Amino acid sequence: MTEAKKTEKLKCFFEPESVAVVGASRNPQKYGYSLLKNLLDLKFKGKIYPINPNAEEILGLKAYPSVKATNDNLDLAIIIVPAYKVPEIMRECAEKRVKGVVICSSGFREAGEEGKKLEDEVVAIAKKAGIRIIGPNTTGILNTANNFTTSFVPLPKLKKGNVAFVAQTGLFAAAAFWHIISKQPFGVSKIVGLGNKCDVDDAEILEYLAEDEDTEVIAVYMEGVKDGRNLFKTFKEVSKAKPIIVLKSGRSPAGIKASMSHTGSLAVRDEIFNAVCKQAGVIRVDGDLDELLDITKAFALQPLPKGNRVAVVSVTGGGGVIAADKCSENGLELAQLSSETLRKIRENMPSWANVNNPVDIEPLFEKVGPEESLKISVGAVLEDENVHSIIVIFVAVPRIVPYFEIKRAVQYLKAKNTAQKPILAYLLGYKETVDSWTMQLEEEKIPVYSSIEKCVKALGCLWKYEMYRTREK
Amino acid sequence: MTEAKKTEKLKCFFEPESVAVVGASRNPQKYGYSLLKNLLDLKFKGKIYPINPNAEEILGLKAYPSVKATNDNLDLAIIIVPAYKVPEIMRECAEKRVKGVVICSSGFREAGEEGKKLEDEVVAIAKKAGIRIIGPNTTGILNTANNFTTSFVPLPKLKKGNVAFVAQTGLFAAAAFWHIISKQPFGVSKIVGLGNKCDVDDAEILEYLAEDEDTEVIAVYMEGVKDGRNLFKTFKEVSKAKPIIVLKSGRSPAGIKASMSHTGSLAVRDEIFNAVCKQAGVIRVDGDLDELLDITKAFALQPLPKGNRVAVVSVTGGGGVIAADKCSENGLELAQLSSETLRKIRENMPSWANVNNPVDIEPLFEKVGPEESLKISVGAVLEDENVHSIIVIFVAVPRIVPYFEIKRAVQYLKAKNTAQKPILAYLLGYKETVDSWTMQLEEEKIPVYSSIEKCVKALGCLWKYEMYRTREK
Repeated sequence: MTEAKKTEKLKCFFEPESVAVVGASRNPQKYGYSLLKNLLDLKFKGKIYPINPNAEEILGLKAYPSVKATNDNLDLAIIIVPAYKVPEIMRECAEKRVKGVVICSSGFREAGEEGKKLEDEVVAIAKKAGIRIIGPNTTGILNTANNFTTSFVPLPKLKKGNVAFVAQTGLFAAAAFWHIISKQPFGVSKIVGLGNKCDVDDAEILEYLAEDEDTEVIAVYMEGVKDGRNLFKTFKEVSKAKPIIVLKSGRSPAGIKASMSHTGSLAVRDEIFNAVCKQAGVIRVDGDLDELLDITKAFALQPLPKGNRVAVVSVTGGGGVIAADKCSENGLELAQLSSETLRKIRENMPSWANVNNPVDIEPLFEKVGPEESLKISVGAVLEDENVHSIIVIFVAVPRIVPYFEIKRAVQYLKAKNTAQKPILAYLLGYKETVDSWTMQLEEEKIPVYSSIEKCVKALGCLWKYEMYRTREK
Repeated sequence: MTEAKKTEKLKCFFEPESVAVVGASRNPQKYGYSLLKNLLDLKFKGKIYPINPNAEEILGLKAYPSVKATNDNLDLAIIIVPAYKVPEIMRECAEKRVKGVVICSSGFREAGEEGKKLEDEVVAIAKKAGIRIIGPNTTGILNTANNFTTSFVPLPKLKKGNVAFVAQTGLFAAAAFWHIISKQPFGVSKIVGLGNKCDVDDAEILEYLAEDEDTEVIAVYMEGVKDGRNLFKTFKEVSKAKPIIVLKSGRSPAGIKASMSHTGSLAVRDEIFNAVCKQAGVIRVDGDLDELLDITKAFALQPLPKGNRVAVVSVTGGGGVIAADKCSENGLELAQLSSETLRKIRENMPSWANVNNPVDIEPLFEKVGPEESLKISVGAVLEDENVHSIIVIFVAVPRIVPYFEIKRAVQYLKAKNTAQKPILAYLLGYKETVDSWTMQLEEEKIPVYSSIEKCVKALGCLWKYEMYRTREK
């Protein structure tokens, strides 16, 4: 299959020109209402066919009694009716030669033996007709490029961006999405909920996203693996082009059991999955969603470092010590600063102060105040050839480190950063100031972390990925 | 030494009746001004003697030219003059029979060979005169019981509480304190910055805090260890009475080097320190300050679990899977729910839904809505004898899980929690709702975490400590 065709085969899910919503409803309490409303609210430009045998019109759109009754070639059908009705709908879709189906309904494999039979039946019908399926038991697709969605979860104002987020599970993906929209500094290109993965799985979606021009970073939450060998191959291929960050649960026996009754996932031995990720240049996250997003944020906002030598610029000595420890744990080294750099910093300090890396900038404050201290110290390490990346540790303590427009310092430093060195920051102190500085920094694409550990870990991941990418070239 | 005397010997630092501020200043830019102002703003009731040879009066208080010139027995002198002047001040304090001295000034051991000599000289004078020292290179003490402080860092409105925070390093402690005050749900009893620890060290402070009635939980940030054997002994003793949570940096060679030039700390092999903590029932935190505070929060707000069997109540299946994994990693087991519990939950669910542990409560929503779902499910596991603690995973997704006053549900559940089972929560989703719910839950003393991992880890620490405490009884 040629490269172009890889994208082609999932195009119906992301860029349908005509969509049937099977189970569209006039009742605002029903998901079939929310789904249709989402498409209208987003001003999706494709043709929409609400399917409901008991309605003439829904939300101002003409309704049709069945898929067959629509007078059009359908790229996609979104199904949101009780599980037991799905085989019948699928048969209609087959007759109608629908290209793809997103099954939002639950009550399939995840619900036990009966549900599994139902799912098998649906898959068999689809396979015979050449229909591709996403789901069941999912919210499906969001594409910010054309404002298309299959989600029945109410959507906030979309924030377009370079991150694609793939999740196995519907409500989790929905909550994560609301979290991203309302709290994270990056935007999204695509969101994909895969649910039970009865047909389309992570590997195919990754292939699609690898070629998607709007996607630069891919974040994945998965529970089970369907075809491990194929996933490994895809991981390897896609990683060469774009970073993949994966959070995989279902690691322990307890987690695997829970996952079985949730998405009917197949287990994979955790150490094998770990080894696969390592070999394939995939960043695996041990922690949780917050870590997945913390690391994604670094990839979304910052360039990759050209080497592993870090300058730590810290306003607290304690922070510098923690950062030094965390660099060691994450494959990063403290750079040996050039004598020119040391001179630039020292000339603004009292005579008793030492300059090392970590650079403790508190002694700079006395002479030049916090804003200039930042400019001088970070400016100096940005221009130091021994330094590949910068960690900035700053605190908000009223009067000692009083509030100033940190944005100004960042803009000054960005102009100096001609070598495109990644800069990541950690802030601690008075919440009001920390929140304001976080917003200012992240607007300027400097990611801010709530712990030094996370900050250094994220930088370590950028470096790990850069090594993989360079080696594979 | 009897128990009473242990506390007695550090009393001068926490409850002085008369204090000299050496280096008090009329210049608002100087730390010697801020320090005095703090004492006045806090309305500290003891006698205060500003020492400054060039001032008659500072901030409305009569100033004295020297320590000797004061007409009183001094419990404590706070020194905030350049390092080279400190030996002379210390000689005066010796003559005057001052009991304790807090040296805020820096430029000692942490600044190299010259500074080390100066520190040794100061220590020798103090030792001969029987004067105890905290510092140098620190902000020293804050005692919320009597509004006493030696800190020159401006202080916010104090939030009294059951947590004592001990940190080696000044500005870090100050920033951490502002963070706690403005963001954390717990309050503090004492804050202690130990700086270079030329005399009083962690062990002695821990002994003091063990007997302090206002302190129930002790959080410690340390870099170096002075007397390992003694610290181990103290850890063991104090842990029997109160939980100690420790973040120790200076783990890697890079971190140790950074720590040397920061507080002149002595290194200790990290695996040895780990083993010591384990044996002594001390919770060691691997991560960073945020983890130290996350775990402290659990101890500050929640009771200890009577066993390791957890009920996970989750509104997303994915969250349940992650929680199950994290329980396994943290020595916790998923409880086998009683048939009575299963019945109570199942009777409000559609027929197709399964009930297990993790309890996926999404199917409850259909019939009873989110608030009742919480009450029914958490209420049932609270009354289940097989369950020792509860993790609640909840999401904020507009319309699907719309906003409600979560406080009401918590108050209802707290009334049911007669067995005093710890409850910890994780929230994900729309920031505005998550922030509001977090505040409501934490006001009701349910700690909320930004990841399931942290939430379960904190619970794991409560259980680990309970095991130690029970074994040592």
